[in-house]
Parts: sequence; structure tokens; C-alpha cells
Amino acid sequence: MDEGHHHHHGGDFDARLTACGVAEPVRTYLSQCAQFHSSPAPGLLIGAFMVDYALELLGANPDEKLFSVCETPKCLPDAPQVIAHSTTGNGRLKVIPIGRFALTMNRASTDKTADGFRVYVDQEKIKAFPIIDKWFSNSPEFNKHTMGTNLQEQILAAGRKLLSYENVRVPVTLKETWQPVTCPSCKETVPDYLVIDGKCGACGPMKYYEKR
Amino acid sequence: MDEGHHHHHGGDFDARLTACGVAEPVRTYLSQCAQFHSSPAPGLLIGAFMVDYALELLGANPDEKLFSVCETPKCLPDAPQVIAHSTTGNGRLKVIPIGRFALTMNRASTDKTADGFRVYVDQEKIKAFPIIDKWFSNSPEFNKHTMGTNLQEQILAAGRKLLSYENVRVPVTLKETWQPVTCPSCKETVPDYLVIDGKCGACGPMKYYEKR
Repeated sequence: MDEGHHHHHGGDFDARLTACGVAEPVRTYLSQCAQFHSSPAPGLLIGAFMVDYALELLGANPDEKLFSVCETPKCLPDAPQVIAHSTTGNGRLKVIPIGRFALTMNRASTDKTADGFRVYVDQEKIKAFPIIDKWFSNSPEFNKHTMGTNLQEQILAAGRKLLSYENVRVPVTLKETWQPVTCPSCKETVPDYLVIDGKCGACGPMKYYEKR
Repeated sequence: MDEGHHHHHGGDFDARLTACGVAEPVRTYLSQCAQFHSSPAPGLLIGAFMVDYALELLGANPDEKLFSVCETPKCLPDAPQVIAHSTTGNGRLKVIPIGRFALTMNRASTDKTADGFRVYVDQEKIKAFPIIDKWFSNSPEFNKHTMGTNLQEQILAAGRKLLSYENVRVPVTLKETWQPVTCPSCKETVPDYLVIDGKCGACGPMKYYEKR
């Protein structure tokens, strides 16, 4: 979702937020998301509205300890990261590559499960927004060069109107305990539970680079 | 890595950055990372020094289009996200659960591979920093309640002194083209390449929630 975006959204996008009359706190969310992501990508903007909706459903403040699951890696994950400190690195964001444009959010829980809300792009509701619908369905009729600004404006105007939610329950995952193991091949240390056939994953099936 | 951290780092951490004399631009990187992550977690701080080092090796400005691979999901991924806009949602961050505390960064490339640098915590160099070593190796001698501040100060003082790097080459992955498919079970749309046995992953093996 990165190709073709401007590398910095600069003041143009903030000016559009003003012109479109986007209210707080979503306005700030959108601006911060675009800055972080390095462009105001359409999926990211929809994602910011989704997180705002999930926060309201939970009755939660974005500064609480919140957990998120994104059902797609495309754009969406940056919204809960920026808005709700539910990040890849702090372990409160999980991305599951299902490919649906949907997000589940829940509070921390001491039980084995947590109640939360799943917010998703509703296939019926999106029909009221033809440009968004064309973009979302990857239609050949969508031209990002001529329709990009209209798409952005339609997303800002639509807000939650293309979203629905459901009440869900998700499993709570515990931190794994671990002991360090030195990989006999590369001599770096890894947690014991990630050792594969006596070696670290990179000296086995997860090798992703060549030395040069 | 989240448990036991303060939910907001507030002014305490910024005051420590000043007291420890951390120079720019790393000082700003560290402060922004802690804010995003919602705590100045040790692995995150080391990660910020790693990204700063990788940027220097690449001769890159953090506002360029940069790609990162993190070899652990713990804390580290938030550093390239915050500092270099190499995020989960914009597709420029990949996390591979190898379990090594290492990061590879590279520029965009039109070739099938890209040259980059892999920065890692060096098992020999870390021995010069006993508190960091105890924390890093998950030693029972490390007590986060009594040694947390000392750990933080040792990390800030050590900076790059516990890091090494190697020259690497990584494969460049292209965007997948796709057509939308409506899942016959849930009626939501997913890209065709993610369909499993005629259904979306969530209506199959990737189900992660129950309705309530």
C-alpha cells in the first residue's frame, strides 16, 4: 500500500482535514497516523476511524493498556499503534494475515479470555460510497492518480458510516518464560523455545540474508 | 517485554537522558520511541542505538524510504518504526521470529536484492556491561525492581559499544497483485491469494475469536 504515496504528507493533508471539517479527536489521530506511516494512505485513514470506534465501544481511553488484532498487514496496523500504543514491539498488536479489513480491540485481562469488539468494513454500507468501494475492491475503474483526492475526501466524509462491529471474545496469551541458548553456528543467543534442530532459525529455515 | 513497565514514561525518562548526556539525534529518537512504546523498555533503547547505527552505515537520512527486518518481535521493532518510518502497516518492516537481537536495514531497490547492514548485540562486547549482560541473558541475578534504573543508565552510557554489524544482501519482495473474493461463509472480502479451501482464513484455520 506504499507505492505511489508521497513520502511526507506535509501540510496538504492537514489542510484537507480542516477543509473537510473532521472533528477531534479523530483529526489528531489522522494527522499523527499519516506522519508515522509517511503518507495519508486510504486504508490508514479508515483504520484511524476504526480505532476511534473501537475505543468508544470499549469505553476506553487511548492511554489505557489495550490489545489489538489486525486481520490484514496492509496499512491498518499503524492506526492502533499510533493511537492506542498497541504496538508490534510492545506485544500488544498482533497481525493475522486473513486479508479482511477488520480490527479487534480489547483491554488487558487476568482471565484466559478477554471481551472485546471487532470493527470491520461493511460490504453493504460501503456501497453508499462509490469511490471508496472501487478502491476497496481493487476495481480497474479506480485510478489513484485522478481519484486519489476524491477518495481521501470521501473517506473523511464517511467516517464510521461504512463500518460495523460485533462483540467478540479473544484468548489471552501469556508471556513465555525462556532460557538463553547460544546457537552453535552463529554464536548469537536465542530463547530456547525458538531453537530449531539445535540451531537458531536464521542458521536454519529462517535465513533471510546473504553476507556480502 | 511489557510487564512491569510504567504505562507512561513522563518526564523522568527525559530527565535521565539529560543527566546521562545523550547526544542528538539519538536523544530525540529515544524519547520518541519510549512515548510510542509507552515505556522506555531496555530492548527498545538498545534498538534506537541500533537504528541510529544502521542509518549511519547506510549513509541514510531517516526520512528516506527504508526497509527493516527485525529478528525478534520483542521491543526492537518499535525503533525502526518510530525513527525511520519503516512500519508494520506501510510494509517496510518485517519481523522474523528468530529470537536474535538484530536488525537489518536497507534502501529501496529496483533489483531482486538490496545491499544493507545487519546490526546486532555482540556477545563478546556485552560482557563489558555486566548489568546489561545479566538482563540480556535473562539471568536470575537480574532484578528489574532494584536494577532497572542502573540498567537504563548502563544502556545509555554504552550506546553502540555493545553492537557489531555485518554487510548483508536481502531479497526484495514485490507487491502482490490481487482480485477480491467474497468469503461464502462470512461474506467479507479478502484478496484471492489469501483464500484457503474456498474460504477466508478466519472462517478456516486462522479463527482467533468467538462471537459473544
